[in-house]
Amino acid sequence: MVRIDSRDPDFAQSFARLLTMKREISEDVDDAVRRIIADVVAKGDEALVEYTSRFDRLGASFSAERLRIGADEVAAAVEACPPEAIEALRLAAERIETFHRAQKPADHKATDALGVTAGWRWTALESVGLYVPGGTASYPSSVLMNAVPARVAGVPRIVMVVPTPDGILNPLVLAAAHLAGVDEIYRIGGAQAVAALAYGTATIEPVAKIVGPGNAWVAAAKRRVFGQVGIDMIAGPSEVLILADGEANPDWIAADLLAQAEHDTAAQSVLITDSGDLAEAVEKAVERALTTLPRADIARASWRDYGAIIRVRDFDEAVPLVDRIAPEHLEIETKDAETLSLKVRNAGAIFLGSHTPEAIGDYVGGPNHVLPTARSARFSSGLGVLDFMKRTTVLACTPESLRALGPAAITLGRSEGLEGHARSVAIRLNL
Amino acid sequence: MVRIDSRDPDFAQSFARLLTMKREISEDVDDAVRRIIADVVAKGDEALVEYTSRFDRLGASFSAERLRIGADEVAAAVEACPPEAIEALRLAAERIETFHRAQKPADHKATDALGVTAGWRWTALESVGLYVPGGTASYPSSVLMNAVPARVAGVPRIVMVVPTPDGILNPLVLAAAHLAGVDEIYRIGGAQAVAALAYGTATIEPVAKIVGPGNAWVAAAKRRVFGQVGIDMIAGPSEVLILADGEANPDWIAADLLAQAEHDTAAQSVLITDSGDLAEAVEKAVERALTTLPRADIARASWRDYGAIIRVRDFDEAVPLVDRIAPEHLEIETKDAETLSLKVRNAGAIFLGSHTPEAIGDYVGGPNHVLPTARSARFSSGLGVLDFMKRTTVLACTPESLRALGPAAITLGRSEGLEGHARSVAIRLNL
Repeated sequence: MVRIDSRDPDFAQSFARLLTMKREISEDVDDAVRRIIADVVAKGDEALVEYTSRFDRLGASFSAERLRIGADEVAAAVEACPPEAIEALRLAAERIETFHRAQKPADHKATDALGVTAGWRWTALESVGLYVPGGTASYPSSVLMNAVPARVAGVPRIVMVVPTPDGILNPLVLAAAHLAGVDEIYRIGGAQAVAALAYGTATIEPVAKIVGPGNAWVAAAKRRVFGQVGIDMIAGPSEVLILADGEANPDWIAADLLAQAEHDTAAQSVLITDSGDLAEAVEKAVERALTTLPRADIARASWRDYGAIIRVRDFDEAVPLVDRIAPEHLEIETKDAETLSLKVRNAGAIFLGSHTPEAIGDYVGGPNHVLPTARSARFSSGLGVLDFMKRTTVLACTPESLRALGPAAITLGRSEGLEGHARSVAIRLNL
Repeated sequence: MVRIDSRDPDFAQSFARLLTMKREISEDVDDAVRRIIADVVAKGDEALVEYTSRFDRLGASFSAERLRIGADEVAAAVEACPPEAIEALRLAAERIETFHRAQKPADHKATDALGVTAGWRWTALESVGLYVPGGTASYPSSVLMNAVPARVAGVPRIVMVVPTPDGILNPLVLAAAHLAGVDEIYRIGGAQAVAALAYGTATIEPVAKIVGPGNAWVAAAKRRVFGQVGIDMIAGPSEVLILADGEANPDWIAADLLAQAEHDTAAQSVLITDSGDLAEAVEKAVERALTTLPRADIARASWRDYGAIIRVRDFDEAVPLVDRIAPEHLEIETKDAETLSLKVRNAGAIFLGSHTPEAIGDYVGGPNHVLPTARSARFSSGLGVLDFMKRTTVLACTPESLRALGPAAITLGRSEGLEGHARSVAIRLNL
């Protein structure tokens, strides 16, 4: 953990060092991924079954018939879940749905004084594939965060893939898929699942876009199939930035810093405060809380290697620092938190006031928890309904409006050396 | 050019062949591009000046002071342009601006029955870099199509880079930049320009996102810097699909097919019609028009290698074919063109009726001419104001609403093995 202070003479350098810290562990799996994709393209189900039975240890009897997870298996999983968890998922799904419904974009059409009609029409993607990791990173909340906006967008076919290493699958993941309205589920993972979604096999129809988190193999495969299909962002390690003043509760702030740090040893938790007392109290509170946290090993490593406490003179000084960090999650626990939030340009999601811990947003707040990491909030947004729709523009000229606009188009076409463009207009005007 | 007919027994295969035709010429420049980017990162202006003077043949005296194109040079360029072309550009800029203003998204905020306030805020990117190719592909219309939406979005700093091979620069490109409100212009191109925009040098501040077309070097560089900055789509060769019935004018259709074909030998022009007579007449009209077209060599190669005429029984049969092609440009010159257009899901831009040649949309229609190619209209949209903005979600709980939602968040956190998440909520509720 680093402690830096805007009053230090070398503050600019220390802050820049914090910004450029490399947290991604890049595994070079690109060659292997290329081979797997080529195999699935060439041999379809046969390759898919072979890779799945080998990587997930499903035995020699695994076959194409078992790729799809049937409705009976889903129903059994829902039965097996604690009712309390199902109820919590249902509440989360409803709130996520309500929030995302407001994101549905409007079509537009207007006819101008010349008689030109121009506008656009939004349509849902025809199909989407949702990747869900296996093992401990198999989060039912992420199933909701990816599938619910797709359903709200109106995507008619939502496919989910999830690997079942040693045949084990978190039943809550199936319950979440059921609640979110996923149409098809396949027990596959890794680069082979991404290839199947992008190119299709006898059992799995291809999709138009692939979303969802995954390990290095999945990320490399998504990069490779991009163009053939759409992909969402490639997410890096999670991060939180907390702005808090001297009135904030140090134990609450410490809990939030550790909630982020427990994700991953490469996660990052940063506190910016104008209070030396709070800085000191939070540091002690983190140490205290670590003594009883189940994932303390992970959280301690993250806090040690990437954590930071930054002291500033006042929060006006903090705003440009926030914009340079462009945090995935920004908690503001200061006086006039909302006013301060309006000065921030770059952040994935903002959590206002001391009663809005980031974890509420991970589950039941309503906004999406799939957010831009690694400073990409400077140029991108969290997942939403627009990621599952696309816009087609529409233009219609009357003979009269073509006569009005045509000469300018002809001039510009000729000035660009594109006589064929000019002629396609001129021929309609007898010019 | 291929002629296929939905009545042919092998239609499915012929159509699939048309869909999977590979039109991209992939030059392998990735290693060279990696070296150039590393050089610019390590040596800044020095590397930028060296590459620019060498690749663009600007002589040994070229220096960092000359990288920026000054206001005087821009003013002189505007003076040097034909007034008619300036007027046409001005009309185009105004119409593009009006169309894109309607795309500005609304912020949202709502407080629910529990007292949770949730919403989002759109903000403009802090800076954008616009790549403009040199030589014959240096299109002033593309400057407008990229820069005007950025200005409408409210981007406070718009930077343009354009190479000047042998010191030559199309004055209309500078005039378009001036009209569109570009703030800074640099005479650089290639991978070195992309690197300078992404990482910055002493002369050029880095930007948050890079947009605009370019050759294989530029495309490879954009792929490499993605993540450090945002990028737009990587555009492939242009394409048009025309739906026309027996009432359409074959000479007009031929002109539109050739306007597309003259772009590039890898461009693609396709006609779908229910009329054998029209199919035949268009084929002849294309041959006639080619005899006098200045860029006939390019257009003829494109039409020969990638052109197609598809006969269908009726236009209902055409709709799923259109959706599978997912054309960049779709012209509909049939009876009830608008009704037919509403059945189409996948297209970048639609041009309705016989008086809306695609070239009008390239210049003065209003909608953007930067559109998804190579079937990517299945999952992406043309350029617009949203490409220059990003959304920050905002969540605020009161103590009471945290009490209402908290237990579900605690349940889900624990079910995902994230006790630290659960505790960050529980600690605020004394649970």
